[in-house]
Amino acid sequence: MSSVLDQGKDLSSLFEPESVAVIGASTNTEKIGHKILKNIIEAGYKGKIYPVNPRGGKILGLKTYTSILDIPGELETVVIVIPARFVPSVIEECVKKGVKGAIIISSGFRDVGLEGANLERKVIDIAKRGGLRIIGPNCQGLSNPMNGFCATWPIIKEVGNVAVISQSGTMALEVPTFLAGNNLGYSKSVSLGNKADVDEADLISWLAEDDSTQVISIFTEGMGDGRKLMKAVKKASNQKPVLILKGGKSEEGKRAVFAHTGSLAGDNNVFEAAMKQSGGLCLDGLEELCSVSKAFSSLPIPKGNKLLVISSSGGAGILSADSCEGVGLVLSSLSEHTLEKLRNGLPEYCIIGNPLDLTGNALSNPEMYGLALEIVLEDSSVDMILVIFGDPIPNSFNLLEKQVEKAKKLGVPIAVNYLGAANVQEKEIKNLQKNGVPVFPTPNRAIKALSYMYRYGVSKMFKDGV
Amino acid sequence: MSSVLDQGKDLSSLFEPESVAVIGASTNTEKIGHKILKNIIEAGYKGKIYPVNPRGGKILGLKTYTSILDIPGELETVVIVIPARFVPSVIEECVKKGVKGAIIISSGFRDVGLEGANLERKVIDIAKRGGLRIIGPNCQGLSNPMNGFCATWPIIKEVGNVAVISQSGTMALEVPTFLAGNNLGYSKSVSLGNKADVDEADLISWLAEDDSTQVISIFTEGMGDGRKLMKAVKKASNQKPVLILKGGKSEEGKRAVFAHTGSLAGDNNVFEAAMKQSGGLCLDGLEELCSVSKAFSSLPIPKGNKLLVISSSGGAGILSADSCEGVGLVLSSLSEHTLEKLRNGLPEYCIIGNPLDLTGNALSNPEMYGLALEIVLEDSSVDMILVIFGDPIPNSFNLLEKQVEKAKKLGVPIAVNYLGAANVQEKEIKNLQKNGVPVFPTPNRAIKALSYMYRYGVSKMFKDGV
Repeated sequence: MSSVLDQGKDLSSLFEPESVAVIGASTNTEKIGHKILKNIIEAGYKGKIYPVNPRGGKILGLKTYTSILDIPGELETVVIVIPARFVPSVIEECVKKGVKGAIIISSGFRDVGLEGANLERKVIDIAKRGGLRIIGPNCQGLSNPMNGFCATWPIIKEVGNVAVISQSGTMALEVPTFLAGNNLGYSKSVSLGNKADVDEADLISWLAEDDSTQVISIFTEGMGDGRKLMKAVKKASNQKPVLILKGGKSEEGKRAVFAHTGSLAGDNNVFEAAMKQSGGLCLDGLEELCSVSKAFSSLPIPKGNKLLVISSSGGAGILSADSCEGVGLVLSSLSEHTLEKLRNGLPEYCIIGNPLDLTGNALSNPEMYGLALEIVLEDSSVDMILVIFGDPIPNSFNLLEKQVEKAKKLGVPIAVNYLGAANVQEKEIKNLQKNGVPVFPTPNRAIKALSYMYRYGVSKMFKDGV
Repeated sequence: MSSVLDQGKDLSSLFEPESVAVIGASTNTEKIGHKILKNIIEAGYKGKIYPVNPRGGKILGLKTYTSILDIPGELETVVIVIPARFVPSVIEECVKKGVKGAIIISSGFRDVGLEGANLERKVIDIAKRGGLRIIGPNCQGLSNPMNGFCATWPIIKEVGNVAVISQSGTMALEVPTFLAGNNLGYSKSVSLGNKADVDEADLISWLAEDDSTQVISIFTEGMGDGRKLMKAVKKASNQKPVLILKGGKSEEGKRAVFAHTGSLAGDNNVFEAAMKQSGGLCLDGLEELCSVSKAFSSLPIPKGNKLLVISSSGGAGILSADSCEGVGLVLSSLSEHTLEKLRNGLPEYCIIGNPLDLTGNALSNPEMYGLALEIVLEDSSVDMILVIFGDPIPNSFNLLEKQVEKAKKLGVPIAVNYLGAANVQEKEIKNLQKNGVPVFPTPNRAIKALSYMYRYGVSKMFKDGV
């Protein structure tokens, strides 16, 4: 099903409404109609909130309307949580009331077969007449943490620069959950479900121009209108990275996609080729979607593919070297001048090279990290850096602080691993991340993320004609 | 360098000594000679502890000897933390004293070139004459949490059934750090460094017969005596899984291996073929070493490759289906009888199939998890189960408890994902794991781990001649 209005059309009513009605609001705390109303209130939304329920009365202290037509004044957006069969008439009322956006949580449409698909088409036809944009149906809603408009569950309040678009509700919430757990946050999160109207392409186009969004992360189960999607990804990726995880790559996965939202997963090779041509980055699994989002969210885009590894662990240095292979990164060849400065500046037990091995002696002489960073940051053959703490070294952030600042100015991303340090580890990782230094669980995970950043930088450079 | 004594020789003096001397013990809290002494004391070691330092006096309240020859009575094991050049004469004294094991932390041997290699050979020649077994040199020691013998740093006290053998000190501690963070633990951890005497093969043979060890997890940088290693892996993998992560797979990695411990990484294809033939499982990266160790440590070996997925998230179900491809697992085809029972037992909104999609309605009807598990556990086409919570569902362990018990008896592993649930997630995961249910960060990670368990089960079945 194609989009009701022109691609790129303003979707701000869905994310930044001045008023919202929850149709199907409930006093029963177990019901989604209760949870969503509660979350909109608790997340700190400042617009007008109108519960709607045929029984009237009060829900969560708010006057409840029996119909949206009774709501005084304008109504910008509705969240719908009522059985599918009642949705068409409610959408009729929305059109009458001049509502601009509807988030339909209810399932029982295309997801349940032909009869549901007809119901869905009916809803879209009515909406089209009124210029009403629809998210869903059969979705988990959306959240804008910047204004507390949490029309989903659970609440995640952490604000950041990653927008998440997902057909699946769980993925729409998992990426923000991951980012929040890593001292980062998100700018928007939306689950699309059956995407009967608004689809990935519409959102990508709109988010391309959303200043609060610097990274667009997507989980999709099917490509829909391929040309429209390519156009949107091309437009957005000129300005910010578009990361895409596609479900339904395998035969078993395709069957599961159809059972989930009635979508056709399509051929994955075609999909990946189309995305690559448009400048999108296709990712390999949920962990990658999360960790690559994290890297783009917190680090500058590297200028080249040359990695310098500083480690107190020889073993982790080896795994880092291995991880470069096949992902397009190489270890920097430091200049003779840099090597000389490292030899003069660092104790004899250090193994000068790349990986630069500070050895386990870093435990008693951790200042070497700052010194080594200072020297290598002056070498133009260093495009990106992985710093590995392989021992329980305290105050790790303070050791890096000055050089991290400098690297930021130079546009050199610094990723960190913190390994083998028992209970010191969790505390140090938390503190590093609290201070804006992203820590990855293994060398491989960090280097993979850096490699996507490099690939984005290259594709952007070509587009920019540099 | 080959082993001093016969392969499979008893190494218990190294892990379970009745007395230990720390040669190079120090009052300087920054020094490794201090940290190790402190850790042996603090980890609760009950044997006799003798600090050795030419200055004598007291260190950490213990009488300090100027030479091990002055120590009264027998001395079983020493930890050596003195400059390399003094090590040969100390080893002479150890032989004189009848010491059985030496853990040489000091670096400056083969790791620094030819001169160091000669020194290393000298040390080994002396040890050989006295029947003294050596761990190291250039290593981070070892730990046995079962008796508090923590001759390394940092202390990790969590006891479990995974033994870790690693050339790298950081990896030797990272796997236990990971396990401890997942409510599991380890039985032994040893870092080998230059492995001038005791090597992976010796340890694998010895650990094959260690009842407290049910999983052997290895990080190695080079194969050494290939035939000896194959023999050891073959012997051990008859009884317990042997998991191997090899560093130095790439050209850059090989260079880094040589810089680290002077080892030759060798050809990785040859290595993997040899390990496969011996029944070892070669893993792809540190995250896999950790998560596969976790799976084997906490779940029964599946009887076949047929996976059943129960999920409240359609999207996560799709990723699960995709993850089976290429790792040798398939989704179970449930019997018509089972499907009928699911249709009758579960609400209409559930999508009966595999993945079995309980839909987001599981949030208000979470008891469906237990019911669904009860039904599918009776289907013989289910060899393993992945349970996915894709919503903030509370008391998740209690929902599974009864069926988890039953599955354990049936020998059906149940892995769990908990996704998209904001701050509920961490608490629920902790509680599940506290109760022995392993939770993996993504469907892919869980399914990959289960696939290794299946592969181990198959190879063991063939060996056992079933």
